[in-house]
Amino acid sequence: MTVLLDRPIVPSPASALVCRNCGAQFPLGAQHACFECFGPLEIGYDPTALARVTREEIEAGPHSLWRYAGLLPVGQNPATRVDSGTGMTPLIRADRLADELGFTAPVWIKDDSANPTHSFKDRVVSVAITAARELGFERIACASTGNLANSVAAHAARVGMPSIVFIPADLEPAKIIQTAIYGGTLVGVEGSYDDVNRLCSELGETDEFENTGFVNLNVRPYYAEGSKTLGFEVAEQLGWRIPGQYVAPMASGSMLTKIHKGFKELIEAGLVPASSWRVYGAQSAGCAPIATAFADGSADVQPVKPTGIAKSLNIGSPADGPYALDAVRSTGGSMAAVDDDEIRAGVRLLARTTGVFAETAGGVTVAVLRKLVEAGEIDTSIETVVFNTGEGLKTIDAVSEGAVPTAIIQPTLKGMRAAGLL
Amino acid sequence: MTVLLDRPIVPSPASALVCRNCGAQFPLGAQHACFECFGPLEIGYDPTALARVTREEIEAGPHSLWRYAGLLPVGQNPATRVDSGTGMTPLIRADRLADELGFTAPVWIKDDSANPTHSFKDRVVSVAITAARELGFERIACASTGNLANSVAAHAARVGMPSIVFIPADLEPAKIIQTAIYGGTLVGVEGSYDDVNRLCSELGETDEFENTGFVNLNVRPYYAEGSKTLGFEVAEQLGWRIPGQYVAPMASGSMLTKIHKGFKELIEAGLVPASSWRVYGAQSAGCAPIATAFADGSADVQPVKPTGIAKSLNIGSPADGPYALDAVRSTGGSMAAVDDDEIRAGVRLLARTTGVFAETAGGVTVAVLRKLVEAGEIDTSIETVVFNTGEGLKTIDAVSEGAVPTAIIQPTLKGMRAAGLL
Repeated sequence: MTVLLDRPIVPSPASALVCRNCGAQFPLGAQHACFECFGPLEIGYDPTALARVTREEIEAGPHSLWRYAGLLPVGQNPATRVDSGTGMTPLIRADRLADELGFTAPVWIKDDSANPTHSFKDRVVSVAITAARELGFERIACASTGNLANSVAAHAARVGMPSIVFIPADLEPAKIIQTAIYGGTLVGVEGSYDDVNRLCSELGETDEFENTGFVNLNVRPYYAEGSKTLGFEVAEQLGWRIPGQYVAPMASGSMLTKIHKGFKELIEAGLVPASSWRVYGAQSAGCAPIATAFADGSADVQPVKPTGIAKSLNIGSPADGPYALDAVRSTGGSMAAVDDDEIRAGVRLLARTTGVFAETAGGVTVAVLRKLVEAGEIDTSIETVVFNTGEGLKTIDAVSEGAVPTAIIQPTLKGMRAAGLL
Repeated sequence: MTVLLDRPIVPSPASALVCRNCGAQFPLGAQHACFECFGPLEIGYDPTALARVTREEIEAGPHSLWRYAGLLPVGQNPATRVDSGTGMTPLIRADRLADELGFTAPVWIKDDSANPTHSFKDRVVSVAITAARELGFERIACASTGNLANSVAAHAARVGMPSIVFIPADLEPAKIIQTAIYGGTLVGVEGSYDDVNRLCSELGETDEFENTGFVNLNVRPYYAEGSKTLGFEVAEQLGWRIPGQYVAPMASGSMLTKIHKGFKELIEAGLVPASSWRVYGAQSAGCAPIATAFADGSADVQPVKPTGIAKSLNIGSPADGPYALDAVRSTGGSMAAVDDDEIRAGVRLLARTTGVFAETAGGVTVAVLRKLVEAGEIDTSIETVVFNTGEGLKTIDAVSEGAVPTAIIQPTLKGMRAAGLL
């Protein structure tokens, strides 16, 4: 299933690949599923190594996610890092949004549209390609329907590494252009995203792809760690403390889970005071398998066939769904899902109160925040961080309705008067 | 013509508004043309104040253009700044681009697509709205066909200031959505961009607009200073030195000129060693009034009717053309213009060698760099900085031709083999 190369990644604070189901441990290599139970693997760390990291070292580091290399599995040697300037995105105090929603505590937007290819995927890809190179892979690959394809192709171009990106052939032309422009190999597959994924798994078994790192398959444990840096940055930007609660969108459920993991590791490392926080998860009604399981009080996530405009969240069978449920339930948080009209309203609400133009996934998160407030399911007296994971320019067609000029006038003062503007 | 409010901006290193034609000086206020000769005004500084600024103070400042407040006309008091996180955009070492073009010296891309609304306009707007508030304006306005409209509306939303943005009514729907999403007043004007501009000048004379700051009219001298920060950042990012040469796109010619001014001020302030540099200007063949004057050996810029895909550069009557000519000629630089096919090739060249997806204006700059190399008009043994002023997602339709998958296949290993990919 995976290629275990004979070059473990050393030295780093990471100590092993740990099965999230059965706890079995494996050496750090190119493996993503447990040999015992086929459960997913994640990176385990040496607590002594984490405890050696200081705030001062981090603050003296680069203005990118690599300032946290001491808390990541790879990139300890700066020369090995794929550093595209990803990370350290703005944490914006959103007082006007807070007012409108009735918050008495501060609300912050963590705006990952500021990354190089304008989504949080640049974080996971920076770490994944760094890991892939350290593991000896000579080519990088992924299956994707948008943001990930974009980010993989751009990063590969930046470092001059061959790339091969697999997408459904019927993707919107704009999404194809955004990836094709970087000049790697781009393969349109006649089939659904599931078909594309299945093909990638099969290709991983072939001799021809032995030296290819699939960022979300054989490199996935490293890849997923990139999302933790969202949590690290929020804590540092708040003056080294963890906020009282956060709201994050869920596709596979990985990002929300990793932010939670990141906060726990910051406490273990002694970088922030111990505190408690609540985790809130946001999904689109067109693809809400995790939120549905939450509402049903179930630990079992039932796959769905995704629909709706929040395409970057449309994963019907979310691999990290159970872990997201656990993070939310164990912290006393909640989940909600919003429909396409609510999502559009969420994009507009965020734009007009903060100047941040989010992709539909950001609209989901803001709309869910509003819904949770209206339902009394989130405490508006607790400081809240809202994660915007992508850029509005990427999903501009979704919000075109009603986004028209206030008035159309003749180019004269008379025209201004006729429109009531003078 | 302009409203001179009775609140000068104090205290700042800026000492006066200085006429670029006749040298007449005026108090710092909301004025953009000389009362003596109608020449354009720019900000003059007190050399003693500039000399007090230290590298250490700048480096300890925020990771935004406001770290240079000591070299700007406004924003000395942090509470007055409109800080959207604009600035400190990546300076990317482009070794693969340098190799492809035959450079033996380093080539760097200063990537302003990383700004909040993904163009360099966020710099001028940050400074302009800060100045407008300090000058007592209660509303902000502009005439624009794209990036500026976007940036003004987003910044106004961020700070909760009313805005009124004027655009030609027949603008592409995507550009209208990008501005309308922020919820300010957006006025579509039946006419050309020149008609829109003329209307704004007339409105500036009305009582109803007395309290409105037009960023590129009555606030223009402050606005234009924002572009200097591009030069400040490049020098700091290179370790406090000025590069041997730079290539910048030209619309009004202001940005290229202000980078040059910024370098000179850094030397005056003692922040970098004195050195010489060459300035190179890039235009699109569809709108090349400045490059044409350069080629003709003329100091006189003849207006043109713009055409072509580099729409953000399409100013047919460039206000700062003569100053751009002077910056280029006085430094021993050069200018060139490139056609639409060369622009598209420039966008693709930059994307596949650096991972930076530029708007068409960035394609102009890279294509002009290539043209200058091929013509032997630029020294490839001198370290070079290339300014990318905007994001490819904003002009994606311009590069759609040929941006297609390498192959379309069936979702099987057999399909991969048939396409020669396995």
